[in-house]
Amino acid sequence: MTVTTDNASNTTSGSTFEVVYEINGDPTEARSRAESLAVEQSHEFPRAYAPAKADRSLGRVVSVEQAGESRSLAIVSYPEDLTAYEIPQLLVVLLGNASLLPGIRLVDVRVSSEFAHRIAGGPKLGVEGIRRVLGVPKRPLLATALKPVGLDTADIAQEAYDSAFGGVDVIKDDQGLGNQVWSPFEERVPAVARAIADANEKIGRHSVYLPTFNPVTGDWKRHVDLAVSAGAGGFLVVPGTLGLDSLRYVRDNTPDDFIIYAHPAFLGGWTAGADHGIAPGLLFGHLLRWFGADSVIFPSFGGRFTLSEEVCRSIAAQAKDDFAGFKGALPSPGGGMTVERVPELVDFYGLDTMFLIGGALHATGNLVEGAQRFREAAEAYAD
Amino acid sequence: MTVTTDNASNTTSGSTFEVVYEINGDPTEARSRAESLAVEQSHEFPRAYAPAKADRSLGRVVSVEQAGESRSLAIVSYPEDLTAYEIPQLLVVLLGNASLLPGIRLVDVRVSSEFAHRIAGGPKLGVEGIRRVLGVPKRPLLATALKPVGLDTADIAQEAYDSAFGGVDVIKDDQGLGNQVWSPFEERVPAVARAIADANEKIGRHSVYLPTFNPVTGDWKRHVDLAVSAGAGGFLVVPGTLGLDSLRYVRDNTPDDFIIYAHPAFLGGWTAGADHGIAPGLLFGHLLRWFGADSVIFPSFGGRFTLSEEVCRSIAAQAKDDFAGFKGALPSPGGGMTVERVPELVDFYGLDTMFLIGGALHATGNLVEGAQRFREAAEAYAD
Repeated sequence: MTVTTDNASNTTSGSTFEVVYEINGDPTEARSRAESLAVEQSHEFPRAYAPAKADRSLGRVVSVEQAGESRSLAIVSYPEDLTAYEIPQLLVVLLGNASLLPGIRLVDVRVSSEFAHRIAGGPKLGVEGIRRVLGVPKRPLLATALKPVGLDTADIAQEAYDSAFGGVDVIKDDQGLGNQVWSPFEERVPAVARAIADANEKIGRHSVYLPTFNPVTGDWKRHVDLAVSAGAGGFLVVPGTLGLDSLRYVRDNTPDDFIIYAHPAFLGGWTAGADHGIAPGLLFGHLLRWFGADSVIFPSFGGRFTLSEEVCRSIAAQAKDDFAGFKGALPSPGGGMTVERVPELVDFYGLDTMFLIGGALHATGNLVEGAQRFREAAEAYAD
Repeated sequence: MTVTTDNASNTTSGSTFEVVYEINGDPTEARSRAESLAVEQSHEFPRAYAPAKADRSLGRVVSVEQAGESRSLAIVSYPEDLTAYEIPQLLVVLLGNASLLPGIRLVDVRVSSEFAHRIAGGPKLGVEGIRRVLGVPKRPLLATALKPVGLDTADIAQEAYDSAFGGVDVIKDDQGLGNQVWSPFEERVPAVARAIADANEKIGRHSVYLPTFNPVTGDWKRHVDLAVSAGAGGFLVVPGTLGLDSLRYVRDNTPDDFIIYAHPAFLGGWTAGADHGIAPGLLFGHLLRWFGADSVIFPSFGGRFTLSEEVCRSIAAQAKDDFAGFKGALPSPGGGMTVERVPELVDFYGLDTMFLIGGALHATGNLVEGAQRFREAAEAYAD
């Protein structure tokens, strides 16, 4: 059988990248499990029956080291070509079947800048770009969510106006605000964008609106076009429901100053377990950023969510570190935040943070006032 | 501000559906957590600040009952309209933020047939349809995977030919076979489909080829068109990486006799924990079926994966039960399966099962022979 191809990327790289897993078991047991894992995530086929030419696609164990009682760290190297340079296939390689194996956790992905960029471009804006677009050189950035779902578009637009008038930089839909009958996407987005533009004009600032991006498959392009033409400043993307490639899609199909803000809804399956899933710092700080997020929301400590201070610190650090030559993303802690906690949270997270406060801005019954107090708390760090 | 809409679905249903969560805590503690959960998954906004009109979108606790030591079952009802009748938004309602809360597990979704069908149509073929398409009225159905990744297209096509010639009904790509340089999708799919057609013609049977559906976003339609025009019999869809709406997309955009086979790769975050995530019977048996899967692969007991006999039994039962008026889906246990285990597995899973055996068919070094033995084991149940 003769086959030909004109696939443009049809050249082998020969390079590999390294993936680190935490594996239950002492080093002897973990080495045996790591050897199985390296095969599972590449060939998923007994070595004894595999033709020699397939060696070019095989994962290999680089090292296994003890990392605490009954826990080991294994480094596995995979051929870059195995990922097909596509996010969905990359995820199959990193943790596809391994997510179904007991006691295996994905904790680090070590990639060259060239390889990483071939798959996705990272943040177009990142920390500096968001600061430039919003005109905020130094102080912490402020975000709020339009809620609750169930309001009419006019109510939501009024809320957006008040939030912008009070001084919140980024005004996003709640992730629960989708395309409901009470305020359909194509009605809400232009109305809210207009309300924020009105407030901006009135008060001489530059707040932006980020509608939720969580459509059914056939609507992706239509929602992008609607948001861009309505003057939205970016999207609140929900990669947990849409698949992680959604970040890359939105990144690659929107204007250069369009902010990609990642929401953690329906990602908790990956971060809830201590001995499976994905280390939160890797997921929120590296993977979502790699795929295009300019800022990543994560559930902060001290509220109703599960992550510890230590984990939140690692997310914030990994969002901004020098991973694969990408721009840093703004960590955006949310959940149980209040204006009163801003100083404590600035101490903890630093100035390059986007604080997300939702319901608490409404506490006085006057949203403009709540937003103004939030802005004042941040202005303390303006110089 | 005046807004108008011509959205065709702009009518409220007023109906609700029920969702069951397992929650850590005794009934008193769990009731308090359930009340918070119902708000989290709808308003995510303090009740005290929410305008009365938003009550129409609020989740409400129906009941809380003890279900074992320190564990309770809570039933929460949500307005159907809250889902916007779209899978991504439905997932946000079911478990979006709740996936990030400690000790909450999604265990059941109780929906009317009308509501369920408005979101997705379930299997087009289901058990009976797959039997009709494959011409197999009674015996268990047989599936295998083309592997390992790294082979050339000609090798893979030969493997497909041998599998079909030996009598395997469904010959799918390994989920690791994506669009790699060694065998790009658009080269592999027509070549493998042709090889299987050749074998079918030679031996007078009807095996089908299911290539992997795991493309980047911009390639979804192109991959569908390529597979359909090449004569593929269906798709192996990877909803874990693509998002669960991918099943609906493929279901709705392929011919009526196109088999949608769901692979569990990158879904393990949801099923690995005992007190978070999604009950495997619900995820594999109900949700993937609801969204369009005709057959669902799950990691069987007795192999290298984690699920117990009891959990596997519940998946197989829930795949075929009368959920929301949908056709039953074929449960497809995989992982560590061998031809020798077929009688044991038929006893356990029943005849309406698609057994997935990969590497073990190659054990004798002769794939045709391995496939023939697999077929013979199933033919014992033909009458």
